[in-house]
Amino acid sequence: MELTSLLKRIVGDRFVLTDREKLENYILDETPIHIRPRPASNLILVKPSNTQEVSEILKIANQYRIPVYPRGGGSGLAGGAIPTRNGIILSLERMNRIEIDRENLMAVAEAGVTLEKLIKTAEEAELFFPLHPGDESAQIGGLISTNAGGTRAVKFGIMRNYVKGLEIVLPTGEVLRLGGRLQKNNAGYDLMHLIIGSEGTLAIITKAIIKLYPKFEATATLVIPFENRQDAINSVPKILQGGVMPLAIEYVERELMEKTAKHLGEVWQVKEGRCYLLVIVAEQSREEMLNQSLKIAEICKNYGAMEPLFAEPKEDQDRILRIRSNIYLTLKSEMIDTLDVTVPPASIGKLIEEVDRIAEKYDTRLPAYGHAGDGNLHIHIMDEGRDEEYYEKLRSEIYDAAVKLGGTITGEHGIGKVRVRSLMKYMDEKQLEIMRKIKEIFDPNNILNPEAVIP
Amino acid sequence: MELTSLLKRIVGDRFVLTDREKLENYILDETPIHIRPRPASNLILVKPSNTQEVSEILKIANQYRIPVYPRGGGSGLAGGAIPTRNGIILSLERMNRIEIDRENLMAVAEAGVTLEKLIKTAEEAELFFPLHPGDESAQIGGLISTNAGGTRAVKFGIMRNYVKGLEIVLPTGEVLRLGGRLQKNNAGYDLMHLIIGSEGTLAIITKAIIKLYPKFEATATLVIPFENRQDAINSVPKILQGGVMPLAIEYVERELMEKTAKHLGEVWQVKEGRCYLLVIVAEQSREEMLNQSLKIAEICKNYGAMEPLFAEPKEDQDRILRIRSNIYLTLKSEMIDTLDVTVPPASIGKLIEEVDRIAEKYDTRLPAYGHAGDGNLHIHIMDEGRDEEYYEKLRSEIYDAAVKLGGTITGEHGIGKVRVRSLMKYMDEKQLEIMRKIKEIFDPNNILNPEAVIP
Repeated sequence: MELTSLLKRIVGDRFVLTDREKLENYILDETPIHIRPRPASNLILVKPSNTQEVSEILKIANQYRIPVYPRGGGSGLAGGAIPTRNGIILSLERMNRIEIDRENLMAVAEAGVTLEKLIKTAEEAELFFPLHPGDESAQIGGLISTNAGGTRAVKFGIMRNYVKGLEIVLPTGEVLRLGGRLQKNNAGYDLMHLIIGSEGTLAIITKAIIKLYPKFEATATLVIPFENRQDAINSVPKILQGGVMPLAIEYVERELMEKTAKHLGEVWQVKEGRCYLLVIVAEQSREEMLNQSLKIAEICKNYGAMEPLFAEPKEDQDRILRIRSNIYLTLKSEMIDTLDVTVPPASIGKLIEEVDRIAEKYDTRLPAYGHAGDGNLHIHIMDEGRDEEYYEKLRSEIYDAAVKLGGTITGEHGIGKVRVRSLMKYMDEKQLEIMRKIKEIFDPNNILNPEAVIP
Repeated sequence: MELTSLLKRIVGDRFVLTDREKLENYILDETPIHIRPRPASNLILVKPSNTQEVSEILKIANQYRIPVYPRGGGSGLAGGAIPTRNGIILSLERMNRIEIDRENLMAVAEAGVTLEKLIKTAEEAELFFPLHPGDESAQIGGLISTNAGGTRAVKFGIMRNYVKGLEIVLPTGEVLRLGGRLQKNNAGYDLMHLIIGSEGTLAIITKAIIKLYPKFEATATLVIPFENRQDAINSVPKILQGGVMPLAIEYVERELMEKTAKHLGEVWQVKEGRCYLLVIVAEQSREEMLNQSLKIAEICKNYGAMEPLFAEPKEDQDRILRIRSNIYLTLKSEMIDTLDVTVPPASIGKLIEEVDRIAEKYDTRLPAYGHAGDGNLHIHIMDEGRDEEYYEKLRSEIYDAAVKLGGTITGEHGIGKVRVRSLMKYMDEKQLEIMRKIKEIFDPNNILNPEAVIP
């Protein structure tokens, strides 16, 4: 029988699509155009509605050695979800049920639940999902597969810390349940943590149990203006050392915030300073929130900060976060690549110095901003009409600088398909060998997201 | 050349020991005697002083297929460290250097650093290591290998959450560096998280980078007395849902606290109630600490709690924690086994009901206490002079009850060598198969802690 017929038998006629037009939203992601891998030409989009269907699809794909590309919200920045070989795009969008377990402070969500839906559903139950990895159209499966970070990771860490249980389907079709509604589990090797961050190359995530927090009684966003970037950056470790634990500490520059606000049809209201720290404070009482906010403002003042903007109403805070979250999309058309190097938090000052030096050397702009509290900076390589070699050298020099400071080439976006060669350069051979062998255990026929992660 | 001579050449004559008398402290751990595996008779104790020496020892062991048993503080409760075959005991005790990176709020500690030293060194730098997995003679390598939990895991989670970087030596001798002084790292599969909790079967941990927290300005320990256990237990999820985030929520019974205090030559001062919640509150201001303490006391009052004891001076708090931490050792001589089943936190009430039912059915006592905030209970099977079959049935029935509630057979102690058969029963075959293959990748000749974890 033809493949499409086999697949239609599993999920129903309506949910197998081959018409290129209808595939348009499924073959790309948010990776900058210049470096984005090209999607294959012969693709079948399949939309299963449950785990059993996912399993049956994978069994067929494995039998016929057909590549399968798991698909979430498509907001990745490393080409991880782009189907680069002829095969199946497996969209989890119909698996979007979510249930809140208020008693255990957890959400049980299928892979296709969007970040937006997770946040809202938690809020309706008077609970809170602290993490905010940018684009809210991202889906749970993708957030976990890429171990997403983003803003608001300072207080409770990155996605990995939130995942308590997973249901996964192996490329060979078996369904495994890992972890549970549990805060502690030491029964055997932790395969769940191996799956987290494996970028859809080891298994398809179909369901997850996610830790939530009680709603914070009081939150505020501080916009703290500085005249120069070193002062702003240098005050970050001091905030953390000062015993303050904000949800987020972001570094941004005025020019970018203004440009992004304009792009969104809004106005950026802070006119002072050339750059800012955006700090989100969340506490269990307004008193404590104000205490922490004052402490932060004071520390920053010692580093030359001007009077902060203090935003307390939800809509004001949301607007600031929305503008911050849209910087990337605003710049996207002008850029070659967006990096997410991460260094020890206390070394971001040095990293910024290096970035300045490299920008000068290459006679280019290198807009930099990001999750300063995590040592994680987004550095954009801008389109200067130069050749491939120029960009490659520039990129390598930034990677080298980060690694030299004890950092990593990717703290958030992952390897996907665009950083595979770089991973080879910065990871030692033995470690790559172990990765390859692990891939073989889970996916003996290399059908799951081939060309991603593993060199 | 003889093996001992080869080893002496690596670490020096003084640090290779074969005299059984000198090995006494290295061949057992804290596992209850009744279930404790028997150590082998022909053992060599080796004490390397650095990573290079560890690597050389492993190369030799791998070449001659000699079992190697990594050794930390020996405070394990599942026989994980007991050398059950003739071979090498590799004690990391001489690798006990520690350095505090105040700027990044991290400790860089060799595997042999004790929990006590980690806590003290952090304190001297005005920082704080929140976790407290019981016995302070435990060593970093063991804490990570077993993904230790214990008390004080409610606010920031278990050991896994604290580990940011690892240096490991593979059984084949290669040294790998995983992670770093980083809050975010998504470069390839996370082998670091696979090593955490693998109980010394995949690699030897030689060094770790551990996240610390700023010192809390104000802490207190509340002892909240209840007349009956269901009331105490049922108030736990309400505390967590109430937006309070204490460091620890422990459930204990008066009889056990009195007995343990006596064992330590102290007096347990709370005379009211048959059981208690011990809650440790830690906040950045005294105001907030008092707020949270009041909120907790109020919630518990709704469940029939009596007036709490409020301990604020450090020595008072330390005494309460010390008595709590010594319950196990006090009971040890009378017990057959100590379980650490873990269920969804909101289900501990049901678990306790099941434990009561099982105790009645088997006509025995089942002292139960533990980390109620994590759904993690220690249930002791007491020595009743019965036969093996009786205890095995009793144990199985407790496991069954926990698993039925969505729980796991071990939330803390791990599989070690005493729960391997149980793991087989409760884990599906495919998952065991993956574990076995992962073991093969790392340790092709099965020299590293054989007979542990993998069935």
